[in-house]
Amino acid sequence: MKKLSVGILGATGIVGQRFIQMLEHHPWFEVTWVAASDRSEGRSYAEAARWRLKTSIPDATAKMKLSAARPEGAPKVIFAALDSAIARELEPQFAEAGCAVISNSSALRMQADVPLVIPEVNGDHIALIDGQSWRNTSKKGFVVTNPNCSAIGLVLALAPLHRAFTLDAVMAVTMQAVSGAGYPGVASLDILANVIPYIASEEEKMQEETQKLLGTLNGSRIDPAVFAMSAQCNRVAVEDGHTESISIRLKKKASAEEIISEWRRFTAEPQRLRLPSAPEQPVIYMEAPDRPQPRFDCDKGNGMATSVGGLRKCGVLDWKFTVLSHNTIRGAAGAALLNAELLKAKAYLE
Amino acid sequence: MKKLSVGILGATGIVGQRFIQMLEHHPWFEVTWVAASDRSEGRSYAEAARWRLKTSIPDATAKMKLSAARPEGAPKVIFAALDSAIARELEPQFAEAGCAVISNSSALRMQADVPLVIPEVNGDHIALIDGQSWRNTSKKGFVVTNPNCSAIGLVLALAPLHRAFTLDAVMAVTMQAVSGAGYPGVASLDILANVIPYIASEEEKMQEETQKLLGTLNGSRIDPAVFAMSAQCNRVAVEDGHTESISIRLKKKASAEEIISEWRRFTAEPQRLRLPSAPEQPVIYMEAPDRPQPRFDCDKGNGMATSVGGLRKCGVLDWKFTVLSHNTIRGAAGAALLNAELLKAKAYLE
Amino acid sequence: MKKLSVGILGATGIVGQRFIQMLEHHPWFEVTWVAASDRSEGRSYAEAARWRLKTSIPDATAKMKLSAARPEGAPKVIFAALDSAIARELEPQFAEAGCAVISNSSALRMQADVPLVIPEVNGDHIALIDGQSWRNTSKKGFVVTNPNCSAIGLVLALAPLHRAFTLDAVMAVTMQAVSGAGYPGVASLDILANVIPYIASEEEKMQEETQKLLGTLNGSRIDPAVFAMSAQCNRVAVEDGHTESISIRLKKKASAEEIISEWRRFTAEPQRLRLPSAPEQPVIYMEAPDRPQPRFDCDKGNGMATSVGGLRKCGVLDWKFTVLSHNTIRGAAGAALLNAELLKAKAYLE
Amino acid sequence: MKKLSVGILGATGIVGQRFIQMLEHHPWFEVTWVAASDRSEGRSYAEAARWRLKTSIPDATAKMKLSAARPEGAPKVIFAALDSAIARELEPQFAEAGCAVISNSSALRMQADVPLVIPEVNGDHIALIDGQSWRNTSKKGFVVTNPNCSAIGLVLALAPLHRAFTLDAVMAVTMQAVSGAGYPGVASLDILANVIPYIASEEEKMQEETQKLLGTLNGSRIDPAVFAMSAQCNRVAVEDGHTESISIRLKKKASAEEIISEWRRFTAEPQRLRLPSAPEQPVIYMEAPDRPQPRFDCDKGNGMATSVGGLRKCGVLDWKFTVLSHNTIRGAAGAALLNAELLKAKAYLE
Repeated sequence: MKKLSVGILGATGIVGQRFIQMLEHHPWFEVTWVAASDRSEGRSYAEAARWRLKTSIPDATAKMKLSAARPEGAPKVIFAALDSAIARELEPQFAEAGCAVISNSSALRMQADVPLVIPEVNGDHIALIDGQSWRNTSKKGFVVTNPNCSAIGLVLALAPLHRAFTLDAVMAVTMQAVSGAGYPGVASLDILANVIPYIASEEEKMQEETQKLLGTLNGSRIDPAVFAMSAQCNRVAVEDGHTESISIRLKKKASAEEIISEWRRFTAEPQRLRLPSAPEQPVIYMEAPDRPQPRFDCDKGNGMATSVGGLRKCGVLDWKFTVLSHNTIRGAAGAALLNAELLKAKAYLE
Repeated sequence: MKKLSVGILGATGIVGQRFIQMLEHHPWFEVTWVAASDRSEGRSYAEAARWRLKTSIPDATAKMKLSAARPEGAPKVIFAALDSAIARELEPQFAEAGCAVISNSSALRMQADVPLVIPEVNGDHIALIDGQSWRNTSKKGFVVTNPNCSAIGLVLALAPLHRAFTLDAVMAVTMQAVSGAGYPGVASLDILANVIPYIASEEEKMQEETQKLLGTLNGSRIDPAVFAMSAQCNRVAVEDGHTESISIRLKKKASAEEIISEWRRFTAEPQRLRLPSAPEQPVIYMEAPDRPQPRFDCDKGNGMATSVGGLRKCGVLDWKFTVLSHNTIRGAAGAALLNAELLKAKAYLE
Repeated sequence: MKKLSVGILGATGIVGQRFIQMLEHHPWFEVTWVAASDRSEGRSYAEAARWRLKTSIPDATAKMKLSAARPEGAPKVIFAALDSAIARELEPQFAEAGCAVISNSSALRMQADVPLVIPEVNGDHIALIDGQSWRNTSKKGFVVTNPNCSAIGLVLALAPLHRAFTLDAVMAVTMQAVSGAGYPGVASLDILANVIPYIASEEEKMQEETQKLLGTLNGSRIDPAVFAMSAQCNRVAVEDGHTESISIRLKKKASAEEIISEWRRFTAEPQRLRLPSAPEQPVIYMEAPDRPQPRFDCDKGNGMATSVGGLRKCGVLDWKFTVLSHNTIRGAAGAALLNAELLKAKAYLE
Repeated sequence: MKKLSVGILGATGIVGQRFIQMLEHHPWFEVTWVAASDRSEGRSYAEAARWRLKTSIPDATAKMKLSAARPEGAPKVIFAALDSAIARELEPQFAEAGCAVISNSSALRMQADVPLVIPEVNGDHIALIDGQSWRNTSKKGFVVTNPNCSAIGLVLALAPLHRAFTLDAVMAVTMQAVSGAGYPGVASLDILANVIPYIASEEEKMQEETQKLLGTLNGSRIDPAVFAMSAQCNRVAVEDGHTESISIRLKKKASAEEIISEWRRFTAEPQRLRLPSAPEQPVIYMEAPDRPQPRFDCDKGNGMATSVGGLRKCGVLDWKFTVLSHNTIRGAAGAALLNAELLKAKAYLE
């Protein structure tokens, strides 16, 4: 089978690097085009990127020349890892030009006709594509987005509970890794021996994205899930892996065993379709009271599984627990990649 | 004025070291006796302690010989910084022998006749002493305790709100410094690049101590404050300073301005009495949205002030905010010291 | 091919865990016996070990019961990861009982009849085994050791230069990872935001082991290599990977190109024999001036390669450069495992 | 006594912040003018600076408006904390305009007529000022510099030995704090769990500055000290305090006692003149084998003392030891401030 050519917008950033790493041996996709900011144009990828991953830059990519961030000459499938302000400008251009834009940016996530998707949770929302103006031309471009790195692990943990017991309230306090801020991102003088109790716009994103993700497709729009939600976002001196202390109240009361059982038996379309990047088990419940921990657990399921632990009674809501997921894999590049795989399986990427 | 002789039980540990540091130039108290585990007996303090503070060991203490942890020969005022299991055994022995035991241990905190005190919050609870059996002998010993390092900053921030608006529910998620676990305490292999979402018994302590501290003296007992409470405790790679993400619901609704105003004008008996270790302002509200932060703010008020910031609406309860306090100063040695100063001012230390 | 049964002494420690991890899918060896301290005896491995690696405990090992650390019932091939004082007592007992003891401990490394081996460097030294008294009984046990975690990366980098140009002087300053101190090992309060310029006995080990490793087999003894040597050992807040700043003086002068060429073309018996754990390239020279770095490079060659970089003129000796190797893989468990593979290839493990 | 007005160029950076902190209560100097980059002009200091110190911004400075970085309107005494490229342009402009420029930048340090001074070591070098063309006009401006943060601690430790025993060779391996790179400086993704074995131009600076500092004033020029010197510079995850592993060879052989005695009795002009920022003891020798350590020792002498420890025989040169000094106090702002105090004492600041 010939692999599908894909391009990466924002290829030199931390999420761009993860795209390249995850696509190196991908069975369906092949990176043939990389673009970054204008000043990088024409340089080789290895020169332009400050590679921050433990594996080496794939040889083929290392030598690739960086293209200008324009649709001309770009392949028809584009993974976008752009800063929000730039994404807001460029993503529509690429969709307009007929590209399938699979975006990790927050720019268009909350736009009514743009699906915000976690394949295990709301894969059906991709139907919104059919109503996009870009799609309804001869060029047939579109945009699909994945959620913020702090929302995705949480929503994977909440989805099976919402389906079985209906959420009534959710409180989330995050302890987020520095890689979530990109590179150079968080200055070492800011985070060594420190906690920063603030990440700009992050709480708002977590709240609104969670409700859109758990919402219901209603014709050409999404009815957001209705429950009270509050997030508090902190940055900690961890490289990879967002840890979250969660409390929830359920409409239908459930026992600890029932909750853990929902997590453990949770699988969905990506698992049934055997999408290449789908983790065997999207939510892993760990028994040890002090797990999950980012240093030891964020790579579970090749970084695509969400780990959950410490389920116990909450004195204010019903239950509390800890959620962990890898913020640049499941929370960014891997999220977009799984979206692309779902789109491919559903013939959106001809 | 001749200084009062005081002794330190558990003098070589992290909290013991803070006691020695804070007492070095104290106007009222003078350390004349130090004790640690039996195997240290007879060694000099400098030899026996693995000193982990930035200031040097005071010369007088460095040369002091460690005594056995027995009341014979000990001064009548004892600061106790013992592990809980040992405290449960030794503190009553010292009280029995006529000592004023001012304890940082959790062993007796929840015992009905033992006051658990933050001088700015519930100084009147020291009246419980009068009902202690140790007190009601010719020897007149007693035990007073201070709360857990994770509870004290929280309660200082809650107290003015509870008084003005009455708490209905409190959710706390902590990010606690490693010094809270003593020495050697947390292994570096456990915490570098990591978050540990579990501290044994910590959540229970935070919950029950908060309600006792905010409770009401009713004759010879304390009626705990009645509100829903839930804590989730995490350890992070920070040396000093516990940061907490808090959400609260109030019975009497209040605006942000009213809340901040209560924090800012909060002072109490220790300030009025000008106790030597009392911070001028027990609760400091910081305007910058990303403060307080442990690296920059935990030493405010010489480590005795609680910093609060980021007050904003909560989507589940009413308000959320961040609390920070120094865990081995205000959260341990400084807490006990301020208790001692209050007791002295009230003539409990002859 | 039936796999050879092997046992692990000190199986619950950090190096013991690495043995179990590296042996999980080993083509020649199978872990059938694990032992730790007496108080662990009879417990399952999963209960007794505080597993500190990112991969999970292999299922088979997790359920294995810990045996007493005695030769009775142990397999004939033993990997030993014991503290030195215990090793000094137990390793001879196992050799006496007929075991091939492949040790990572320092206890017997400098004993005249015990080979201290890096297979790429001095594999011929294993001939010392034939003179061991344990070997010359009907039971045929023996002991082989590998060097200290700080010596092995250095010696891999020095060996090709010593062979080609003859070392005259070596200065090494190390920045060592905390995992080198075992678990719980370095307290977080000691190392966060800190450097500790001292590791007990480490400098002496580096110096004498380097000279034995680069020495010459002369009948039944090793003539140590003769050159001036000095080491300064520091601990830094890194989890895995010892970084070293090295300066050398050569007897035969060499250009930078000649030195780099010796590193790049360096391969030896383990590569020719295709030993399963041998890295394709034992020494990797990196061109970027700021490499190698532990966070990004210590896993090269599955943690079995030594990375070198920054070769430049030294104003005191001839050349200076940086060396990095993984301290618990190439520097401990992987070192012993490669020794075992060499012994197997040479028919020392019947 | 009326305080002398001083200005700070580069006032918002990390070193600029230290200047402001150290000058807050200075008995001789008062900050009346602050300047930073053009885009900050006109904003208040508190708005423009991202303050990264534990003490608060002094009130007076917080409200001060940032001036343009031009001599017009600036006071006659200027502390300069500029990036090297900007310093090369601006410092001569200010000297030309009649200012005493007391610079922490590397731009002019090696210029033949610019003194590079550590008051305890080579205060006599300030005589070079008299030959500066800026000085020999009616305006009487001049430039004085202090060394790089990695050189100053080393040179303080070397100076008494060089005087007593004459250095023949010096090898230095540094482990430098992130604050040395300014703000935002080192990205957290680069340094968490890592060592970076490279700092651009740092080794060259250490080498040539050390020799100029220990050199001899010969009329209108400095004859650099003549000894072999080599430096290797590493960055580590420490906030403040450069730790260095040093080896030296002496022309006149000395015992450990003699060396330690030279360090301990080392005082110089700043101590005799009782300059306000001079540490009582410029070099502190610590007996514990594992000291000095940055976390515990870099504030000794209010950050102005150099700590030395671990003196032991070196197998290649004669002696090895560890040096530590605070890189933004003694290594930057404090260095310049002590230079200013010396100049004031010698009537160079009228």
